[in-house]
Amino acid sequence: MSDDFLDQATAMVRSVIPVLGHMGLRMVEVAPGRAAAEVPIEGNANHIGTMYAGVLFSVAEMLGGVLAQATFDGARYVPIVKGADIRFLRPARTSVVARTALDDVEVARVTAEADEQGKAEYVLETEVVDTDGTVVATFRGDYQLRRRQ
Amino acid sequence: MSDDFLDQATAMVRSVIPVLGHMGLRMVEVAPGRAAAEVPIEGNANHIGTMYAGVLFSVAEMLGGVLAQATFDGARYVPIVKGADIRFLRPARTSVVARTALDDVEVARVTAEADEQGKAEYVLETEVVDTDGTVVATFRGDYQLRRRQ
Repeated sequence: MSDDFLDQATAMVRSVIPVLGHMGLRMVEVAPGRAAAEVPIEGNANHIGTMYAGVLFSVAEMLGGVLAQATFDGARYVPIVKGADIRFLRPARTSVVARTALDDVEVARVTAEADEQGKAEYVLETEVVDTDGTVVATFRGDYQLRRRQ
Repeated sequence: MSDDFLDQATAMVRSVIPVLGHMGLRMVEVAPGRAAAEVPIEGNANHIGTMYAGVLFSVAEMLGGVLAQATFDGARYVPIVKGADIRFLRPARTSVVARTALDDVEVARVTAEADEQGKAEYVLETEVVDTDGTVVATFRGDYQLRRRQ
């Protein structure tokens, strides 16, 4: 994946959701069925030097929109986040990367169901990992793909 | 509740978690067993004018720390967020207020359990409401109060 492509994806995300720019978020992977993003610890810590829970949530949650755009035809479908559950496993004291994926079988199921019924539910499981490789949070997002009218 | 007191609480929160200052968050209620905070739509919207999911999460989640500080003795106990579940019910197109509470019976139970066992789990249920009074999100946070060693 070229740096140029990821720079463009990062610029687009920050344009669409300015809060993510304030967090210093950048995309590190964008492909059909795959998305990952990174946020630095600088500016995102609390007074005891660990990353704020809302930033950990944001870097995981925003992958849903990016993955949908890279995976589903934006002219035909709109993704919606219905809810999410996040578990904070360890304090994060470094930059973190959130990473998620949706396999081909699930992409085909969701697309077919949205075509037939106008909407389809799907789940994204996301891990947030620090620079030591420790999983600091796990995230489960409930999304819906809606067919455009 | 005096404006001065809430201004001071707001300044403290923004000092502890600078990201919340970038979001324009301000405290609107702080009392034993009660906390509420507001964020504006300005700066917190996405490209279609609705509030970003990560901001809705943050304004709800941060109440856990404020409520704990206003309710439990900070010299004896430390609160920890273990996880959270949020449901996005409606798009938010205005400023929103998140509000939560913990009743006296539950405060007594949590305090006694932390004293006896060193830690106690508790749940905060939070609603996030727009200026029309519509509940745009519901949040359930899982917290733990730990007795300091």
